[in-house]
Parts: sequence; structure tokens; C-alpha cells
Amino acid sequence: MSAFTKPVIISLFPIPEAILNHTQLLNKYDVVKYQLTTPSDFESDMSKEPYRSAIAIFGSYPGFKPIGGLEEQSLIDALPPNLKVIGLCSAGYDGYDLQHLSSKDIKLCNVPVDKYIAMDVADCALWHVLSGIRKFNSWDRLTRINTTEDNHSHTLKLRDKVRNDFVKPGEKQVGFAFGHIYHGQPVRRVSGRKCVIYGYGLIGKAVAERMITIGMEVNVVIRDKSKYQDSDFFFYSSSSPSEVEKATQGANVIVVCLPGGKDTFNCINKQTFDNVGSDCVVVNIGRGSCIDTEALKAAIESNKVSHVGLDVFPNEPIIEAYWHDEKEVNSSSNRFYTTSVTPHLGSSTIDTLEFASFTCIENIMIGIETGQFKNVVNEK
Amino acid sequence: MSAFTKPVIISLFPIPEAILNHTQLLNKYDVVKYQLTTPSDFESDMSKEPYRSAIAIFGSYPGFKPIGGLEEQSLIDALPPNLKVIGLCSAGYDGYDLQHLSSKDIKLCNVPVDKYIAMDVADCALWHVLSGIRKFNSWDRLTRINTTEDNHSHTLKLRDKVRNDFVKPGEKQVGFAFGHIYHGQPVRRVSGRKCVIYGYGLIGKAVAERMITIGMEVNVVIRDKSKYQDSDFFFYSSSSPSEVEKATQGANVIVVCLPGGKDTFNCINKQTFDNVGSDCVVVNIGRGSCIDTEALKAAIESNKVSHVGLDVFPNEPIIEAYWHDEKEVNSSSNRFYTTSVTPHLGSSTIDTLEFASFTCIENIMIGIETGQFKNVVNEK
Repeated sequence: MSAFTKPVIISLFPIPEAILNHTQLLNKYDVVKYQLTTPSDFESDMSKEPYRSAIAIFGSYPGFKPIGGLEEQSLIDALPPNLKVIGLCSAGYDGYDLQHLSSKDIKLCNVPVDKYIAMDVADCALWHVLSGIRKFNSWDRLTRINTTEDNHSHTLKLRDKVRNDFVKPGEKQVGFAFGHIYHGQPVRRVSGRKCVIYGYGLIGKAVAERMITIGMEVNVVIRDKSKYQDSDFFFYSSSSPSEVEKATQGANVIVVCLPGGKDTFNCINKQTFDNVGSDCVVVNIGRGSCIDTEALKAAIESNKVSHVGLDVFPNEPIIEAYWHDEKEVNSSSNRFYTTSVTPHLGSSTIDTLEFASFTCIENIMIGIETGQFKNVVNEK
Repeated sequence: MSAFTKPVIISLFPIPEAILNHTQLLNKYDVVKYQLTTPSDFESDMSKEPYRSAIAIFGSYPGFKPIGGLEEQSLIDALPPNLKVIGLCSAGYDGYDLQHLSSKDIKLCNVPVDKYIAMDVADCALWHVLSGIRKFNSWDRLTRINTTEDNHSHTLKLRDKVRNDFVKPGEKQVGFAFGHIYHGQPVRRVSGRKCVIYGYGLIGKAVAERMITIGMEVNVVIRDKSKYQDSDFFFYSSSSPSEVEKATQGANVIVVCLPGGKDTFNCINKQTFDNVGSDCVVVNIGRGSCIDTEALKAAIESNKVSHVGLDVFPNEPIIEAYWHDEKEVNSSSNRFYTTSVTPHLGSSTIDTLEFASFTCIENIMIGIETGQFKNVVNEK
């Protein structure tokens, strides 16, 4: 069988061979790789075979991000004339002109977060929360430094050193170092602390389950209170400032599980940080745009926030050094600020990648074969 | 009021001033600090005032460890003649000749682990398990290295670099790096994995709750099966090898929550590692002596174990570099081994320290005042 005798699907990124519908895909379709470089190259290449024959594009997670999205009318107009569907593996789909795609009768399909993907992301949040309260990740880094004469690390010597680092001379402690002091700051128990979760989709729910299991008192801030009247939790609508104030008052931990976009832009801001308790731990596994960056920096400088744990970042994909530097907040405060950082891999497991790739290929194949497309995000 | 007019209590380590019975203690007793240096100094010093008058010794967590314990008959004979009680903050009390203390009518009191202390330790285990399966702590360290031209870190560039490090040329992947590959190894979802917990005291129970919440299938290995017949879990007695084999077969995670001592020495051993699945994550928050060190090293070298997370160590307080080095297992295997390390701080929160100090002081004061001692570990 020679190439290009079957309907053509363009794959912008590799399709994992382990997925169950991979053989079926290759039996029925010619899958042609195409690497996005520039918008003009794309426009020109799409007019040539085999791309011109394509009826579907597999976009994996990045989709058209490498050429800045698919918002330019000329880019959409340059798509193959018989293109029926663009499949994404991600839940998010910003950067597409949905209307113009619809006008060309091209479906854009995503893969919604399911409860297992939500667990992956919630595990990431949980790791950051534990790192923030107990400083485990900071201790982990310090434990790798061999400081004894014999070039070993040493539980007691390390705990003693860390207790008295960054402490004023008069406050230095002697005797047994239990490990309850990190660079002069007390390390507190997780259980009994107050945790506020922003967002209560599948991810927020999975985070709440974890926070409750580790003994925290959980409040959830949601945008539409009416959806959750029967819940056991306390809920607060972010459209009502007094409710949000009540939810966040004295909070020890904030976990942001919100999507990006205009609705959630800077919704964790100066008011939030004014309400929280001292030594608050802030974790963001939603989107960098949800937190007012300047307000967060001010809250760090004023000792309101003692740890920031980020899987998503203000200028992502750039991670500025500010977000991973641990430091004395300022010389007069005698306070030490800690961080935990992961490069946006909340759902980055091989299980999620294969599930999403499988579902994306199903979205494409079933849609083409039945005319009934699933997970379409640009339905009128 | 001059010093030493009240009954004398020797404190070997600082008593936290924040505990609720601190004022009462100072009102009723003269608390005299004594720093342990050598056994002979101790013997000589105890014969002098004010130590000679002491009726109690506050040992905090280390107790007599700085002079090698209290097992030598001469050391116990040198204790103050009217000494009634030695109070420890720890649950463990190895290194004491319990019989000889009893023969002198000296009570040794500990502070048993309560459910809150157990939660502290279980949070530490949870952090190591998440670090082990998802490699979050390894990513955290790599994210702190600024590698771009502008001296920033970068989510996509970092994930791409880490994906293809330690991968043979023919296996290098191009295109989008989702973050599901860590140094050539797939990063798997936590949910659905099989976790075996050794030990089911308060700590093992708290660990089990956490492992269930993050979606793992939990088996528990206990020594006395008869205690737990009504449980919902599957239990396996470690006195029955076939039961243990069943419990550990194909396990993805092992969490050791056992105390030290002869009964548990090397009870995680070659048989255990022969049974577990490949890429197994081994976490120890019990005691270093519970795991057969050579068997564990062999399991790492033979790719059975892909991550070791330790809060306790074989030669504690020494932490050998082996236990924190991350490395390619061997050049032919193309396998990368990861670690997480914390310097024995499972229960190291200010909350635990204060609770244990409070309870230890209560053990001492109530015992002296009523003659009824609580938490005595050397009752005949």
C-alpha cells in the first residue's frame, strides 16, 4: 500500500503508539507529520499535497501555539479546503477564532478534564501544599548537601544549622534541634489549618478531598453559588465580596484551581491577601493570570505570605527567578520566604497523555465517520 | 525567692515556654539546666548540688543519647538519690536499662504517638510518595536552574531537556514535551497504583487514609492479623510468608511505618523486592533498620526500585550520599533512579514539640504530686 491512498490526517505532534486506537487510525488514514514553523510557511504549505487533502488535524496539547494560535483570518482561510476537524488533547482552547472556524464548517474538539486527570492535577496541588507548610522540598534540597567532615549529610547537624540560619544572634537556640524550625521560622502542623480553594470543578473537588484528608478546614470560593446549595462544604460566591472575605479570613492556605481568561483575571488580589492569616501558603495550579502578581509580591514583602507554590506562572512559559528564589524577606523582619516550583506538569502523566491522545483520535475518527462530532467547542 | 528552695527538676534540653503548664512548672519547681557531655562528667556532676537534690529529669526527645544512653549500671547508680522520674518527649525509649531503673524505683515515662502526631508523620510519607511517583521534588530542583538566554527558567524548554537527558540517541523525542518523561522514564499517575503499607499503628492508619484518598489500592502488612479481623482492608500477617507475598505482589509503592527493634529488623528484604512490580517507589518513615540495605541497593541496581524516599536512614544520624544521589542506574539499562530525602522530621512540627513537651511535664508533675505515674514504660 503506498502512502496517501487513504484520507489524510495531519499530525502536528507525535501520536503515542501505545494508544488503543492507533492501529485502527493507521489502517484507515494516512497520518502525515507537519511541523509548524511560521504562519506564512503554514499558509503556503497547506496549499500543497499531501496537506491540501487533509480532512483532520491532530494538534495534541499545543495545537497552533507554535505559530501564535489560529486567530488570524488568513490562517484559517489557508486551512485545507476539505478540513472537517481540528482535535486538541487539552481542555483549554484559547487562541482560536471559533466563529471563523464555524463559518468554514470546521469543528474544534477538545478533551475535557475527567476525574482521573483532575486527580493528577490535585496531586500536584497537594505536593505544593505539603511542601509549603512543612518545607519538605526545602529540606530535601538541603539534605543533599554533605556538610560533615566525612562528606556526609547528618540529620541532627543539618536540623541544628537550619534552625539557627537567618536568626539574630540573641535568638539563636542551642541543644536538641527537633527540625521544627526552618531558617528561624516555625514549621506548623498541616492538620487544623484553614484552607481556601478557589474553583470547584473536577480539579477543585479532587483538591478538596485531599485537603480534608490531611485534616484541614476547607472553604471553597466559587463563582456560581447556586450550583452547590446542597453541598456539605461552606461555599462563597466570588460575586459577593463579603462572602469572599468570610471565606478567606485568617486562611493559612490558598489553592487556586481556576481556569484562565477574563472572568478570573487577578481574582486573587490585595483584598484576598489582606484577609489571610500571617504565614499563608499560596499554591497555584490553575493559571498564572488568576493571581495579581504585584499584590502577591507585596504580600510576600509584608510577611503575609510565607510560601508560594507554583505549577503555573505569570509570564509562562517563562519562570522568573523571583518565583523560585528562597530568601530572607527583609533584614529587619527576620523572616524567611520559601517556594516550590514545578514546570506546569499538573496533569503530566503518561496516563493523561495517552487518555487524551486516545480521546482526541476518537473525536476525530468517530466525527468523520458518523458526522456526529463529540467535544466540539465551537458549536453555534 | 531564691533558687533551689523548691523541688529540683533537671532539664537536659530547653522546655518550650509556650506550653500551657510552663508557668505552673516554674511556680512549683526549680528547673535546673544540665548539658550532657560525657558519662564520667555526668556521674561526677550528679553527686553535687543542685543536681543531687533533683526528683525528676526532663529529657525532651534525645534523653540520654548524647552520652550513649542509660544502659550502664554505673550511670544509673549515679542518678540523684531521690530521683523519681525521667520524662521523655519521644514515643521511643531504646537505650535504657528498664529493669535497673525499676529496681531503683525510677519511672521512665514517654509520650505515645497520638493521632495528630501520626498525621504529621503521615504527611511526610505522603510527600515522599508524591515525590516518588510524580518526581515533583526532582522537577522542583531542576526548575530552580535558569537555563534560557535571559537567565530564566522555562516550562517548555525544561520539560524538553529533561525528557531527552539520559536517553540513547535513537530514542530521543522531538516536538511537544508534555512533562510526562523524567530523564527518559515515564511519569505515571498515582491513582490506580498498588500501595503496600507495613505497619498499622496510628501512623500506618493515617498513611492508609492518605493513600486511599489519592486513589491507590492499599494493602497493609501487619504482624498480628487477629487484631484487625473486622477491617475493610486486606490484611496480611508478616508471620505468614505467603500472605506477605500476596500483599506485595506487583506493588508500585511500599511505605514502611514500623518501629525499630529486633522484631522488625530487615523485614523489608530480598523477598519483598522480588515480589514488587518494576519501578517500585520505596518510602521509609519508620526506622532505617526495617529495610535490608543491601537488598534495597540490589533492587535499585536491578531496576526493581526506581525511587527511594527516606525520612529515616540505615546509619542515622549519618545520611550517606548514596541515599540522595540521583543517577543513571547503569549505562546499559538506560534507567534513571530518583530520591527524596528529609532529615528525620516526620513529626517535626512546633505543634508536636509543644504537645509532647506539655505531656512530658504533665507526666512528671502529676506523677510526683499524686504518686500515680502515666505513660510509664518500665512497669514490671
